[in-house]
Amino acid sequence: MAKNGISRRRFFADAGKFATGAALGMVILGIGSRTGIQGRAQEVPNWPWPYEALDLEEVALQGYEGYYEGKCSFGAFHAIVGALADKVGYPFNIIPTEMLYFGHGGVVGWGNYCGALNGACAAINLVTNKEGADALIKELNLWYEQTPIPLYKPSSPKVEIPDDAVSIAGSTLCHVSVTRWCNATGFKAKSKERSERCARLTAQVAQKAAELLNLYHAGAFTPEHTMPASVAECGACHGPGGPIENVKAKMDCLMCHERHP
Amino acid sequence: MAKNGISRRRFFADAGKFATGAALGMVILGIGSRTGIQGRAQEVPNWPWPYEALDLEEVALQGYEGYYEGKCSFGAFHAIVGALADKVGYPFNIIPTEMLYFGHGGVVGWGNYCGALNGACAAINLVTNKEGADALIKELNLWYEQTPIPLYKPSSPKVEIPDDAVSIAGSTLCHVSVTRWCNATGFKAKSKERSERCARLTAQVAQKAAELLNLYHAGAFTPEHTMPASVAECGACHGPGGPIENVKAKMDCLMCHERHP
Repeated sequence: MAKNGISRRRFFADAGKFATGAALGMVILGIGSRTGIQGRAQEVPNWPWPYEALDLEEVALQGYEGYYEGKCSFGAFHAIVGALADKVGYPFNIIPTEMLYFGHGGVVGWGNYCGALNGACAAINLVTNKEGADALIKELNLWYEQTPIPLYKPSSPKVEIPDDAVSIAGSTLCHVSVTRWCNATGFKAKSKERSERCARLTAQVAQKAAELLNLYHAGAFTPEHTMPASVAECGACHGPGGPIENVKAKMDCLMCHERHP
Repeated sequence: MAKNGISRRRFFADAGKFATGAALGMVILGIGSRTGIQGRAQEVPNWPWPYEALDLEEVALQGYEGYYEGKCSFGAFHAIVGALADKVGYPFNIIPTEMLYFGHGGVVGWGNYCGALNGACAAINLVTNKEGADALIKELNLWYEQTPIPLYKPSSPKVEIPDDAVSIAGSTLCHVSVTRWCNATGFKAKSKERSERCARLTAQVAQKAAELLNLYHAGAFTPEHTMPASVAECGACHGPGGPIENVKAKMDCLMCHERHP
């Protein structure tokens, strides 16, 4: 039990109670019951929080600016949650969006999961249930792997890069995404042009995530991307039910492994 | 501007203002000023939120149980943030910890960044500034790569696995971590034993993250793990300032690439 007699909110047990406003699982903020003053207190809704459709151009611009403020993962998370704070206000304005800072450079520079994706995922999952998050993030990952990046260009770029300085990552790994862009364009990994590329990438990822959320919450989301063929081909032996079954993944196997009989 | 005249909180501009209680960057929750009723309203503190030392055994148990409730990423995030909600209460009890569900299986099953790490990172970053998050998560990543997993054993396991069914991941990637454990133990990737392994891993990661947070906030944190030699060796050419400089990463290069002249 938490202080003040507030039960720690539990996970799936509370799902679906938001619509009914059930008191269980809601944290009442305010002073009424504790001081004897009655009044309308603000309640923290159960997860997932209610979404409102966002302006995609505004989200992209905030993602671009956010990159230069707090790097890629904060940039994408703040672009969406900040836009909801601007549009809806409470409860989105109580989330410290800085908590997604850690995702930068594939988690504190590790080159692991792309930080812009990580921030966008957290924003998606704040406003979708688990089935929705699974579906939208699967689509976002596949889109990222298969789409030329960056295509977003701000009206006032902080750094100029050629319009054709784009590449297809083929992977959701920051390291692969960055290296393939460097190899395709000749820019160095620590250059200001590569930073600008990641700022535009952050804009593009945040915009795509908001587009998926807009569609999903309008009941109009349908997946458009398919898994790389290797996931099923290699999975026939290495995946679920296969004779070896030592792999649990949806990445394109052939980005790192060679085909073998 | 958000509704209610509340300014959208900005990133580094607000850092450090928590201690002074500056009004800028704080969201006032409550009813006083809007209804004429005066009283003590609850304020959302600026990031990073104030931390209190946690009981490591309790965090581990919550991580284990949380895995079976909402998988690895939720499990680790909820173990720490939920423990803070239990101990401190507000504001930790306003965070919907379900928002980290997406990290399961290396981000919706992708096999990318280990979900337990992802959840632990978000919890760390909620209560540390960017320098602290960078330092603690670097240590957590290196510890994960180099430590036998899982070593945590609950007093009442949901599934029995041998005490020696452990492996060293060598990577922060879920896919690599899982496959190396499957290869070392003979258990299949979709088996209930592998799930139990990941539940214990979630406990171990959450516990380690809380240990690092306890040390950091007591002023007693010192890094204990070092980078794989390949990061500097390969980085001499491929890293910052090198003649090729097409890589920005801290993963062990030799987990996926072969040594070359």
